[in-house]
Amino acid sequence: MSMNAPASAADLVAALQNAPTPSQTAYAAAEARNAQLTKPPGALGRLEDLAIWYCGWRGAAQARIAAPQVAVFAGNHGVTAQGVSAFPSDVTVQMVANFEAGGAAINQLADLAGARLDVVPIALDRPTADFTKGPAMDADDFAEALAAGWTAVDPSADLLVTGEMGIGNTTAAAAIAHALYGGAASDWTGRGTGVDDAGLAAKTAAASHGVAANEAALSSPLEILRCLGGRELVAMAGAIAHARVLGIPTILDGFICSAAAACLHEAVPGALDHAVAGHLSAEHAHGPLLERLGKTPILSLGMRLGEGSGAALAIQVLKGALACHTGMATFAEAGVSGA
Amino acid sequence: MSMNAPASAADLVAALQNAPTPSQTAYAAAEARNAQLTKPPGALGRLEDLAIWYCGWRGAAQARIAAPQVAVFAGNHGVTAQGVSAFPSDVTVQMVANFEAGGAAINQLADLAGARLDVVPIALDRPTADFTKGPAMDADDFAEALAAGWTAVDPSADLLVTGEMGIGNTTAAAAIAHALYGGAASDWTGRGTGVDDAGLAAKTAAASHGVAANEAALSSPLEILRCLGGRELVAMAGAIAHARVLGIPTILDGFICSAAAACLHEAVPGALDHAVAGHLSAEHAHGPLLERLGKTPILSLGMRLGEGSGAALAIQVLKGALACHTGMATFAEAGVSGA
Repeated sequence: MSMNAPASAADLVAALQNAPTPSQTAYAAAEARNAQLTKPPGALGRLEDLAIWYCGWRGAAQARIAAPQVAVFAGNHGVTAQGVSAFPSDVTVQMVANFEAGGAAINQLADLAGARLDVVPIALDRPTADFTKGPAMDADDFAEALAAGWTAVDPSADLLVTGEMGIGNTTAAAAIAHALYGGAASDWTGRGTGVDDAGLAAKTAAASHGVAANEAALSSPLEILRCLGGRELVAMAGAIAHARVLGIPTILDGFICSAAAACLHEAVPGALDHAVAGHLSAEHAHGPLLERLGKTPILSLGMRLGEGSGAALAIQVLKGALACHTGMATFAEAGVSGA
Repeated sequence: MSMNAPASAADLVAALQNAPTPSQTAYAAAEARNAQLTKPPGALGRLEDLAIWYCGWRGAAQARIAAPQVAVFAGNHGVTAQGVSAFPSDVTVQMVANFEAGGAAINQLADLAGARLDVVPIALDRPTADFTKGPAMDADDFAEALAAGWTAVDPSADLLVTGEMGIGNTTAAAAIAHALYGGAASDWTGRGTGVDDAGLAAKTAAASHGVAANEAALSSPLEILRCLGGRELVAMAGAIAHARVLGIPTILDGFICSAAAACLHEAVPGALDHAVAGHLSAEHAHGPLLERLGKTPILSLGMRLGEGSGAALAIQVLKGALACHTGMATFAEAGVSGA
């Protein structure tokens, strides 16, 4: 059930509210199959839950992952004027070139997973406005970035990972989390790519000022995304939403991806039912953010790179889960005695 | 530096004491390369440590995993007479047939990892003696099982996973851990494949009685392995030791594999320097056992199947680590600005 990209936040909410639910028949058939496989009940732990969940979304009792897609979105951020990153903004476009040349971590991890990799830079020559002064994007910018994410999803993919590149975007993610969930701004900021104490203080101040400067406009989760986000965050939200509409299981990456996804989760209950958390980032606010989403990370390896790297690595675990679920013999087939 | 299988515990200790150390040159070159890759320092977290560690053992600044081997050993246990398992002993030979037919979880996970899978049943028609009455094996049985493990290692493999199948073997592993590390027997027993409360009590009693019945003989870690282990545990120890001598990096699996490995670790310091812990088992004593080995598990997915399944899944993480380390561009190559 593909459809055109939503033209506005209201259209996006409507699309999510009308999105199909997974197949209860396939889910039940996958659960029944799992109980018959040649292993003690529950002995594959979380792999069993992941396989059943995936089969439900794919509408098949014995599914496999054959066509995963990794989509990496890039954007530039006006908030870098506040001294929030250890790297200059030029690095965004330089890293996009690195993605296109095959030299980044995500290239290696997508390749290992047998995944198609799409790199989508969005208006890198037009950074978003500095959100400590007012909204990062207007409604047109928001719609453009949403469409870039929505249309990047391959409807024939059977798994989606969204990643990002954008110098300054951990500050945008922190501001979003602060606006969505309250607490102190410092609860949501961290060292990102590796800022020093002064940089961390600048990030916390920027997140705090961003929420204050946009207070009147922050009337909904998607307005929070528009005012405090960046183009690559909006695009990730668009891609994740389209995957929900298409029934494509999705693996969330780290803190920035999760902040974008949180805006969908808070806008429409169930918007992330098709998504699992690929990993727990070293960025300290990621764990509390995943708790808000009700997601338990698959991996916890101290990664904090972005690009979709943690989620791309988690594809392997999901592939392992499906390989076992779909490939193993049953007790009856193998002539193995039960407990 | 391959060599004949040790004929005794004393020969095994000598082989481990004389085993080569990893290349400090390759280790330093891998560390230097890691610092130049197009990512913020440390942003790949544990993947960076794993890649450098692997490169050191392989003697190359840019290594990849091309020929992993999974070796699964099977044995039968006299201690099953004590009612310690939810499954009958017949399941050991039935599951070996399932491995050989390609129907078990380890078949799917080895296949996904591109690993060679060797299945090595050891004297399944001759269960070890019930260790609650005396030693599980005599010196000849021990040497035979040690050689089965030692010779199963393919010297051309570049990564080894050892797994096991043996109804009753979580009880043997618990008895070994209890003998090595003390505490209460119940600290080391758990529900294994899924025993009820009576089964768990029987396991704890068996581990306790096993240590008491063999007390006079438990004079060294390898005597503990002989008196309380099983053929598949001794074989895993032999395979892990041979990998150490050959310089083949090794991924430890769950509780039973770790108990076998612990006997090497306690016999010869550094015996497990070539090994990482693939996962944290749901068997509650695995975490404390890994702490004794100084190993942090790569995965924690609630698995408790054995067969080498958790370690085989962890091959994917190690492959990802090496793919990034060896395949990524440097800042200079990609023309990306530093911090």
